[in-house]
Amino acid sequence: MREIAVFSGSAHPGLAAEICSHLGVELHPVRTRRFANDCLEVQLGANCRERDVFLVQPVITPVQDNLVELLLMLDAARGASAARTTMVLPHYAYARSDKKDAPRISIAGRLVADLMVTAGADRVLAMALHSPQVHGFFSVPVDHLHALRELARHFARYDLSATTVVSPDLGYAKPASHFARLLGVPVAAGAKERFDDRVTISSVIGDVAGRDVIVLDDEIAKGSTVLELLDRLREIGVGSIRVACTHGLFAAGALERIAGQPDVAEIVCTNTVPVLPEAPEPKLTVLSIAPALAEAMRRIHNGESVSALFDAR
Amino acid sequence: MREIAVFSGSAHPGLAAEICSHLGVELHPVRTRRFANDCLEVQLGANCRERDVFLVQPVITPVQDNLVELLLMLDAARGASAARTTMVLPHYAYARSDKKDAPRISIAGRLVADLMVTAGADRVLAMALHSPQVHGFFSVPVDHLHALRELARHFARYDLSATTVVSPDLGYAKPASHFARLLGVPVAAGAKERFDDRVTISSVIGDVAGRDVIVLDDEIAKGSTVLELLDRLREIGVGSIRVACTHGLFAAGALERIAGQPDVAEIVCTNTVPVLPEAPEPKLTVLSIAPALAEAMRRIHNGESVSALFDAR
Amino acid sequence: MREIAVFSGSAHPGLAAEICSHLGVELHPVRTRRFANDCLEVQLGANCRERDVFLVQPVITPVQDNLVELLLMLDAARGASAARTTMVLPHYAYARSDKKDAPRISIAGRLVADLMVTAGADRVLAMALHSPQVHGFFSVPVDHLHALRELARHFARYDLSATTVVSPDLGYAKPASHFARLLGVPVAAGAKERFDDRVTISSVIGDVAGRDVIVLDDEIAKGSTVLELLDRLREIGVGSIRVACTHGLFAAGALERIAGQPDVAEIVCTNTVPVLPEAPEPKLTVLSIAPALAEAMRRIHNGESVSALFDAR
Amino acid sequence: MREIAVFSGSAHPGLAAEICSHLGVELHPVRTRRFANDCLEVQLGANCRERDVFLVQPVITPVQDNLVELLLMLDAARGASAARTTMVLPHYAYARSDKKDAPRISIAGRLVADLMVTAGADRVLAMALHSPQVHGFFSVPVDHLHALRELARHFARYDLSATTVVSPDLGYAKPASHFARLLGVPVAAGAKERFDDRVTISSVIGDVAGRDVIVLDDEIAKGSTVLELLDRLREIGVGSIRVACTHGLFAAGALERIAGQPDVAEIVCTNTVPVLPEAPEPKLTVLSIAPALAEAMRRIHNGESVSALFDAR
Amino acid sequence: MREIAVFSGSAHPGLAAEICSHLGVELHPVRTRRFANDCLEVQLGANCRERDVFLVQPVITPVQDNLVELLLMLDAARGASAARTTMVLPHYAYARSDKKDAPRISIAGRLVADLMVTAGADRVLAMALHSPQVHGFFSVPVDHLHALRELARHFARYDLSATTVVSPDLGYAKPASHFARLLGVPVAAGAKERFDDRVTISSVIGDVAGRDVIVLDDEIAKGSTVLELLDRLREIGVGSIRVACTHGLFAAGALERIAGQPDVAEIVCTNTVPVLPEAPEPKLTVLSIAPALAEAMRRIHNGESVSALFDAR
Amino acid sequence: MREIAVFSGSAHPGLAAEICSHLGVELHPVRTRRFANDCLEVQLGANCRERDVFLVQPVITPVQDNLVELLLMLDAARGASAARTTMVLPHYAYARSDKKDAPRISIAGRLVADLMVTAGADRVLAMALHSPQVHGFFSVPVDHLHALRELARHFARYDLSATTVVSPDLGYAKPASHFARLLGVPVAAGAKERFDDRVTISSVIGDVAGRDVIVLDDEIAKGSTVLELLDRLREIGVGSIRVACTHGLFAAGALERIAGQPDVAEIVCTNTVPVLPEAPEPKLTVLSIAPALAEAMRRIHNGESVSALFDAR
Repeated sequence: MREIAVFSGSAHPGLAAEICSHLGVELHPVRTRRFANDCLEVQLGANCRERDVFLVQPVITPVQDNLVELLLMLDAARGASAARTTMVLPHYAYARSDKKDAPRISIAGRLVADLMVTAGADRVLAMALHSPQVHGFFSVPVDHLHALRELARHFARYDLSATTVVSPDLGYAKPASHFARLLGVPVAAGAKERFDDRVTISSVIGDVAGRDVIVLDDEIAKGSTVLELLDRLREIGVGSIRVACTHGLFAAGALERIAGQPDVAEIVCTNTVPVLPEAPEPKLTVLSIAPALAEAMRRIHNGESVSALFDAR
Repeated sequence: MREIAVFSGSAHPGLAAEICSHLGVELHPVRTRRFANDCLEVQLGANCRERDVFLVQPVITPVQDNLVELLLMLDAARGASAARTTMVLPHYAYARSDKKDAPRISIAGRLVADLMVTAGADRVLAMALHSPQVHGFFSVPVDHLHALRELARHFARYDLSATTVVSPDLGYAKPASHFARLLGVPVAAGAKERFDDRVTISSVIGDVAGRDVIVLDDEIAKGSTVLELLDRLREIGVGSIRVACTHGLFAAGALERIAGQPDVAEIVCTNTVPVLPEAPEPKLTVLSIAPALAEAMRRIHNGESVSALFDAR
Repeated sequence: MREIAVFSGSAHPGLAAEICSHLGVELHPVRTRRFANDCLEVQLGANCRERDVFLVQPVITPVQDNLVELLLMLDAARGASAARTTMVLPHYAYARSDKKDAPRISIAGRLVADLMVTAGADRVLAMALHSPQVHGFFSVPVDHLHALRELARHFARYDLSATTVVSPDLGYAKPASHFARLLGVPVAAGAKERFDDRVTISSVIGDVAGRDVIVLDDEIAKGSTVLELLDRLREIGVGSIRVACTHGLFAAGALERIAGQPDVAEIVCTNTVPVLPEAPEPKLTVLSIAPALAEAMRRIHNGESVSALFDAR
Repeated sequence: MREIAVFSGSAHPGLAAEICSHLGVELHPVRTRRFANDCLEVQLGANCRERDVFLVQPVITPVQDNLVELLLMLDAARGASAARTTMVLPHYAYARSDKKDAPRISIAGRLVADLMVTAGADRVLAMALHSPQVHGFFSVPVDHLHALRELARHFARYDLSATTVVSPDLGYAKPASHFARLLGVPVAAGAKERFDDRVTISSVIGDVAGRDVIVLDDEIAKGSTVLELLDRLREIGVGSIRVACTHGLFAAGALERIAGQPDVAEIVCTNTVPVLPEAPEPKLTVLSIAPALAEAMRRIHNGESVSALFDAR
Repeated sequence: MREIAVFSGSAHPGLAAEICSHLGVELHPVRTRRFANDCLEVQLGANCRERDVFLVQPVITPVQDNLVELLLMLDAARGASAARTTMVLPHYAYARSDKKDAPRISIAGRLVADLMVTAGADRVLAMALHSPQVHGFFSVPVDHLHALRELARHFARYDLSATTVVSPDLGYAKPASHFARLLGVPVAAGAKERFDDRVTISSVIGDVAGRDVIVLDDEIAKGSTVLELLDRLREIGVGSIRVACTHGLFAAGALERIAGQPDVAEIVCTNTVPVLPEAPEPKLTVLSIAPALAEAMRRIHNGESVSALFDAR
Repeated sequence: MREIAVFSGSAHPGLAAEICSHLGVELHPVRTRRFANDCLEVQLGANCRERDVFLVQPVITPVQDNLVELLLMLDAARGASAARTTMVLPHYAYARSDKKDAPRISIAGRLVADLMVTAGADRVLAMALHSPQVHGFFSVPVDHLHALRELARHFARYDLSATTVVSPDLGYAKPASHFARLLGVPVAAGAKERFDDRVTISSVIGDVAGRDVIVLDDEIAKGSTVLELLDRLREIGVGSIRVACTHGLFAAGALERIAGQPDVAEIVCTNTVPVLPEAPEPKLTVLSIAPALAEAMRRIHNGESVSALFDAR
């Protein structure tokens, strides 16, 4: 079998290193130069020829630099005669641009997928894409994982007899329900209403009064949705509050703002993106999805079923 | 300017004829043969050379025959030197296959879009696609219309002072809210819950008690969602009930079943698909979207803004 | 070596099962659903990842359903990370649409080949395509077999000392001559004349008077060509008459009509398409091409020469 | 309307000049250089920008030089911003390579068509392609003309009351029959038999004894088929003999050999390829297809129906 | 003729405005948003349908942001049904990455060209690309201008009787020689030597002793080459010194450093990139290439020859 | 591992045979036919199925025939199910056509690269391409070797204590400097000046007076550059003179002209192209690059690093 060769861009080398340690392979070095004219040059630091190459790079802030770096890596791997190049996308920020909700804009989630394929992506390993339709934006095979198993394993340590999982919005109710099933607890969901272009959470569907709640979302960026849901939950009156998500983007002080809520006992996310609080945040727990990505990469490399492993999607 | 040339497949020639009458152009004949070996042959019955060709064909039952016929028409137009070929898709059934919710299936909404482009589609005029992300499945320009203006014009004749628009599910709440705004009335929505793979409408968000309701959905196929919503509305207690949708697929007696509900005063749909009740159905009103499609085609042909016309999307 | 994985569509599962039994591999299950809106969904029932996938599906009645099912299978195999996907096409009905003999029609044999490649076909194993040029319609490698060896083996049991092979038309004379050579007998051919768009067999070239004849054609659909040839042969006066073909489509009672000729002793075809007479037909012999397809698939899988095996083409 | 711009490669500039004179447009100059390393450079000698460019170049001896020159012209026109580039192929020699009749060869008729499209051909105007399936090898629109009208017009001057048109082979019987219809005379055909890889004309189908004959073929290269047919006709006993074809390739003294037959009264071909007898040949008549090509180009340029003009195909 | 529609990205709106003023057309607005997750969204602010769209965007610092913005604009224009989209690239920074001078790097000049075409670029208007081969990296038509005429017009005002043009390196000698010819003066060039990976200007070829010199280069980034050449010129002893270039990138204080040389009388560049000195720099003259780009765009729009105008390349 | 299969076109079978002998594999036969109509047919004479196919063919005189032959071989290998097809291009003549230095010409170096990929080239092994940017014209992986190591090994046998390597032109100074480093000697270079479209070598940069010189260029075609440099060197006064190059094209008596210079002691080239002097030329030494190509092919086949071997590029 062709050997595996793993490289990381600048976006999240720590995750790549952790994946490699789980796989028991070396993380090969990558040298990224920025020329005087601001152009990037990326050199893959190990033989790719006939190798099964994996490039680990979440598309995260700074998005444009990380994206172009990834495109250069893809092209370099192809030019270096990789047998197959798999993009490992722990987070794909442009997935949110998945529809044309204004005239004369690009559906960037599709465009960027096309650019990646043009640059040489043979396949994709993605994590919790913003909407399931984004899978269809790629013209190459996609393995689409989620992190619910990891999140559930964390919460299983608690007494969950009075716990309900709450999705901030019905659009995310299906994964939340799957997550609740993993924990053996009921699910509820905030009901967003969109009147006159403003969206607010007007009510919570399902029985949450007096329950301990785990608020679950796919990503937390500015955190306003979560904060709004907490207001509704407090109006209803709930027990303990924990907040969980896959992608902890935590833009603009969001982490601090949520952690600052006295009734929030814990914030749990995964390391699909680097989580770097300004100050140590005792309420924060970051779970690693490196074992899951490593296992998927091992199966992709060996030709074993990935869907068999991750049965929830 | 190059001349316009409009052709219709077998799926819905009546709609095409109506569009042509609005455009003031001839609907050119198409001859479809079925050979002894069940293969189709489609001959476009007028010169396409350097013409601005429009092929009108909803992808509806029998889906596979209508789809292959459309693909043959697209290729014929290209081979006949059409300057540009626009598919007019009043309904695109495969749009519902927009995600990979089981392993080793095709995301058929994307595949079929690719087949259409392979066959020669230069652009698309679509109507109320099942999800807005499906737009991104096409690699050619799409003009994506909706029929809410037509539906609203119909209901504007009534006294709406006690009326609320109800969407069966929050996923369709945004168009419903736009529709309600056109009528100057409030909106409500059924809240679907999905526990253990069964989806039910568990409650209605928004104030509907004692209100006249217009239930609005994008399409009605088997009608079970609408019937379930009616149960919830009856439990709450509402005034008059009217049902409206864009695509009146009405599979397997759905029309008769809904019309058979004594408290349903009216069922309104458009003619994106041919609506052919088994018996005359006095409660049914079919609105024509031919004027809207004709106007969009006129603007596409003349290079005028289509988004300017249909501001809601 | 990557493992082989064989799947069958709905068109001819019996043939696929027989092939698999010859290969000594499992025929993996395929689940085809038809939704309320008449769209198809096909799920491949076994891991395809890095497998050498073969999809067995003749393009036969109902052609459009079988074709779309095949396209969905191809896309599913690609999306499921098949290492290579080979379409096994025991019959390709659209091959007859191989030229533009009327203005503004599609050359569907080329279009459908392009659709198959768009959907994910990496290579093709075809059987007795209608014209050899159709091979050139595919942009991927084609292995093109014939069934003459199988047909010849069947007839070798008879006393052939007074036998002549007769092709209904000179266009098929080359394969007929090859077949005759396999049997060690002379060949003759009907001469079609095409005056004023009507084609008739006006004469038979070669010595057939008083000979036993084996009429050989590539396919029999409505059977009118064969019946016309029989008239000419009777005028000349021949001994026993046997009829053979590769693709026994037998549309619209053709089998019964030919078998009903008292002087026809036997009708022989292969199982490239399912042959299902309305009533048991004692004159009919169906030979299996499963061993030949299985052997070709084995060689394709193992990288052995296929042309070395099938030397006649 | 965009202006027309016509260029000619080195293969047949006389034909291009004649076409331009019929169109009333200038034949723009082309400069072809051959470098010291034997590479070609082609410079189009007039502005192509937004023009409707036609490149006239039969693919004839020296085939490889003329082909590469044509590919360079196509790319130059595209790079020079032509609005549309139509290849005018009065003869396409590689069309004869239309099937894979030996293992591990290219189907060159398809390959070269793909090369032409890669180089920038937007559409094709072809003349009497060797088999009608070759049309399907091009992925761009093809207008496919024949020269039968021109040939018929020539022969209409004679007393044809005792004349029969004879095709050397049944494969060409359909065009021969169309040609005979244009002249109002009957048709006959030589019957080729192919036993043991040698093909001979064994008989003539149709009534030719004592008739004046016009032998018609699509092309005459070495002329052996025609000479063999003449032998058969002499055995039967015919009146006057005239020979006609579209493409007068006349390789290796073929013209002289046929003209040297005392009973051949006349040889007629068209100028799809340059006909340059070694010595003046009084029996030879070369008809010009320049008016037909010019009229087709005029219609292509103006968007008028081409099939309407050339009804026989 | 289709109307022209000009849009500018964020990189250099001033140049686009100036171009539009020369063309006498409106510069349409573009709205670029940056989401919380750092993704960009670009909305073209005017109807593109059937328009001849020009997108003005030099690929300059911040390169990755400007590049992605341009790609989004290209896709938006295509999706908005532009008849044709021309990228106007006054500067293309990635052109310097034109060869693989280390293993396992991307030839980014080619990759980025492919990305632009994937995103929807139909053609390119470029200015003084780093090497002429970069033209060949684009698979769409390129009009490739230079600014020498503009630079020459500026210097023509001086007494040039004792002036020599000096190129810092022989690789740029051909354009320098063309420039000198425009001024009617002789040319000289620095000779770079590259020993052991360090490149230095070791001598000056041509007669410069006692001459006034105009140092000419295509771009000045860090300025070290120019400063090194000035050292050589001073060693030889020259009269007045003026420095000129097309692309005044002036990275990291380069402008200040060159202007700080007491014997440098003047620095002249064009506005292909925005030149924004930290402080007003009296020695600096910025010439506008807006008239040249506007004229080229006018000719592209009208289908007039661009090469006729800019004869030097 | 898949087996290797090497084939040679007509251009340089001797080199291919030598490569195969180094690899210890058979050179498989290729049969090239030229039909009466001047079309070529190429048949690969061994099973390609799942093989790692290498096609050895320099693009040299007769360029068009060799190019088309190579394209036919590429397509034949693809059609014959090669696992991977690598073009081995010891010389690529069209690489010199790498820029658009006149309007309305093709950049043929890019066009021909695209044709090769269309025909089925999966990767390229090239030798000393005319400019490094040509690498970027290929959309498939390129391994780009040089022959400097082989040339250096030859000269290392001499006493080089008073030797300087001289490049005829600064454009080739980088490889010359690398070559000099391999020999441990200094480098010098002719300085070409291009005034008024005529290019002459006006001076030599670096210390050559009284030194033994090795003149090194990438190719020698007509030889005029070398002869001009020799004139300059004689004016300066040098010791012994040796001439070396990679590609010994030696057009039009160039070899005889250079060898006829009495002070030229030796001419050394490699066998990237067949060198066939009209008469035995004692001053000529032809070094074989077959071992280098064989080693690169071995590494490509085995997935070992090629850049590791050839460190100079």
